Amino acid sequence: MQDRKAFDGLDGDTVTATPFSVDGERLRRDIERNAQFGAVPTEEGQARTVLPGTEPNRGARQHLVDRMIQAELTVDVDAVGNIAGTWEPDSCDPDAPPVAVGSHLDSVPYGGIFDGPLGVYAGLEAVRALQSAGTPVSRPVTVVSFTGEEGTRFADGVLGSSVAAGQLDADVALDRSDGTETLEEALAEIGFHGEGRLDASSWHAWLELHVEQSDRLEQWGLPAGVVTTISGTTRLHVTIDGKADHTGTTPMAARSDALAAASELVLTLERVAQSETEHSDTAVATVGELTVDPGAVNVVPGKVELSADIRDVEYTVIKRIVGAVHDELASLEDDRGVATAVECSYDVAPVDMAPRCRKALHDAGDAVGVGTTDIHSGAGHDSMQIARVTDAGLLFAPSDNGHSHNKLEWTDWPACTATTEILTAALASLAGDVNEQDATRSK
Amino acid sequence: MQDRKAFDGLDGDTVTATPFSVDGERLRRDIERNAQFGAVPTEEGQARTVLPGTEPNRGARQHLVDRMIQAELTVDVDAVGNIAGTWEPDSCDPDAPPVAVGSHLDSVPYGGIFDGPLGVYAGLEAVRALQSAGTPVSRPVTVVSFTGEEGTRFADGVLGSSVAAGQLDADVALDRSDGTETLEEALAEIGFHGEGRLDASSWHAWLELHVEQSDRLEQWGLPAGVVTTISGTTRLHVTIDGKADHTGTTPMAARSDALAAASELVLTLERVAQSETEHSDTAVATVGELTVDPGAVNVVPGKVELSADIRDVEYTVIKRIVGAVHDELASLEDDRGVATAVECSYDVAPVDMAPRCRKALHDAGDAVGVGTTDIHSGAGHDSMQIARVTDAGLLFAPSDNGHSHNKLEWTDWPACTATTEILTAALASLAGDVNEQDATRSK
Repeated sequence: MQDRKAFDGLDGDTVTATPFSVDGERLRRDIERNAQFGAVPTEEGQARTVLPGTEPNRGARQHLVDRMIQAELTVDVDAVGNIAGTWEPDSCDPDAPPVAVGSHLDSVPYGGIFDGPLGVYAGLEAVRALQSAGTPVSRPVTVVSFTGEEGTRFADGVLGSSVAAGQLDADVALDRSDGTETLEEALAEIGFHGEGRLDASSWHAWLELHVEQSDRLEQWGLPAGVVTTISGTTRLHVTIDGKADHTGTTPMAARSDALAAASELVLTLERVAQSETEHSDTAVATVGELTVDPGAVNVVPGKVELSADIRDVEYTVIKRIVGAVHDELASLEDDRGVATAVECSYDVAPVDMAPRCRKALHDAGDAVGVGTTDIHSGAGHDSMQIARVTDAGLLFAPSDNGHSHNKLEWTDWPACTATTEILTAALASLAGDVNEQDATRSK
Repeated sequence: MQDRKAFDGLDGDTVTATPFSVDGERLRRDIERNAQFGAVPTEEGQARTVLPGTEPNRGARQHLVDRMIQAELTVDVDAVGNIAGTWEPDSCDPDAPPVAVGSHLDSVPYGGIFDGPLGVYAGLEAVRALQSAGTPVSRPVTVVSFTGEEGTRFADGVLGSSVAAGQLDADVALDRSDGTETLEEALAEIGFHGEGRLDASSWHAWLELHVEQSDRLEQWGLPAGVVTTISGTTRLHVTIDGKADHTGTTPMAARSDALAAASELVLTLERVAQSETEHSDTAVATVGELTVDPGAVNVVPGKVELSADIRDVEYTVIKRIVGAVHDELASLEDDRGVATAVECSYDVAPVDMAPRCRKALHDAGDAVGVGTTDIHSGAGHDSMQIARVTDAGLLFAPSDNGHSHNKLEWTDWPACTATTEILTAALASLAGDVNEQDATRSK
């Protein structure tokens, strides 16, 4: 388990006065206004559906641009719709590599209101706080909203940040279709198909605030987590072909039951992941999708398709679990007469956050009097891609009961404010003296 | 394994001449004509979709009625659409309990052309053969086509025979809806909502010829099987509620994975059934349907629903396997923190065929020179319901490679003719002397 610092409280006597004027109410109004785009009526909680290139996405984007312009940022939209609002105060060297901060505005279907927007509007609020406080910065600060982080349309996720990090060609991304239209067509329709490419490799550093999406911070009673590593993810698509037969007339010994074979794989995957947690407590593996063909009460399953999602902060652990899947399938072919096929549908290695950014975030927590702890991220984020080309830092705010990707996703407003204060202080530090900072850049 | 008699060959020198004139070509034309109703185009094999109360079902019914009338049978249609064509020659006592013979005309979607129609048209051909041969019978002979044997619309199956056997109230059956219309409405639309109730308990005996739907006869090189017992079937609908969670952010130890729990159940069911086959080689158990909710690659399964289909010729074996399912679910609740629910959606006890009818079929095989063997039926049939109220016999014709319920279902025409010869000879015997037969009726 990671080293934890004590929680000094969010509004008690021990909170050190900071030189920044983070306006928690203004941040709340921005997030609540953003939550109206694609809002889904619910009896409990708040949900929204904001898929990339849709009308709700257009509304959310336009509102962000308006708010950026109000804060006197210079707004650019690149070819894949990434939005960048840059603040270049008189104090800064406009040619110095900027510090960037932000997240994404899109959501999963019926998603929560914090996942993404908290990071985008906290970035904007941090700039406004620095402006209000008159904090001198030596570098430009760019507030970013990436296109298509969730992967619910046109891609598996982190689309805009993959392009910004040079991991995905912009033209390839623009050609992706959801079956009805391409990303390029969808972006053009909503007026957010811009020009050029936002280039993350030109940034001095990157910071992202995001909701944790699990309940560790809540369990530990801590208001902020500084991410050490984002787990890698490998996804396998497995097909098991057996023999469909009449359940009444086919003796047990004459069967090749695809579901029974798949059940062995599900349990092996679980057992192997559990055993890996003895070495690496961050290892997880899941069969989340499984379909049976033909799927009738009186037919022995002839075919099963399933997906395996395997994650850890150690790539070697992921590889070992993948190896175990292949071994199990070979056994099933021998023992059960099934035919199997495996396709790796997604493979992203674990990514470490930059020590410089982690230190800036911990120090910022100390400066504003908010306790921080090291923590890993089991979920992927835009920071995962950006960290491949510049120093990146990722800060977590607590998620109530760990709920996320649904209407129950919630982070208390004081926690939003407190983590935005950390973000602001870290931003001030990273955007500070040009010469000193460049010397410490690790990539 | 059952006692087997040698196969004397279908068209060799050893086939004894019989007093009946079964016309294999006429039978073939009837089955091929019937196959045109609801015919589904295929590149290989022949398929048909004939759901009860549909236009193809109307066509198939009307054709049968026409053929019955051509054979001078008196046709009755009861309230649930069961069709009965009765032959009352001068030789018979019209008040004597009749011998009935037949099967069903409906099919599963994309079903084969023999499953059901072979038995109906073989029954009609047997009557025509007795007529041609001038065989005197002491009892009326009734050729029957039951409504809705397959259970693809309005019921779980054997609907018309359940009503005829007094196991299902006709009004209850008529009120059943497929979501669009009731059985009563559907039958009225196609002109087959008749009056009264075909009463199987008034029959002296019942015979059915059906395709085997497995490949045992083929493996044994035998042309006909006399069914000893039809397996009972118990179906359970199982719900397992776990906890849907993010696959990346939920540690293995914090999960309640509904699919992992379900996988244990699938394998336990298989293992228990395999172990029962040491005592009763006819025991089978299958999970044929399984759905995962929400069923996404990055969500730990929150809920699984599945069906278990359990069959054997011994009801106590079925009960033991059902008990093992309950035990396993209790363990899963304790070990995995899931909530489970079981509903018994279908429960039919095994049914023995009448010794008198079995003997009549074996003797008939000897008389016409076609080898017969004892065999059990793992699939349900109309005979299962009729056997509850009168003496019933069920004869199997071989299925090529055991294929059934699809376009590859096939029984060679000579085998259709040979088994129809057995059926005819058994019918002649059972419809023979009134006094002797009544004395031997076992129920």
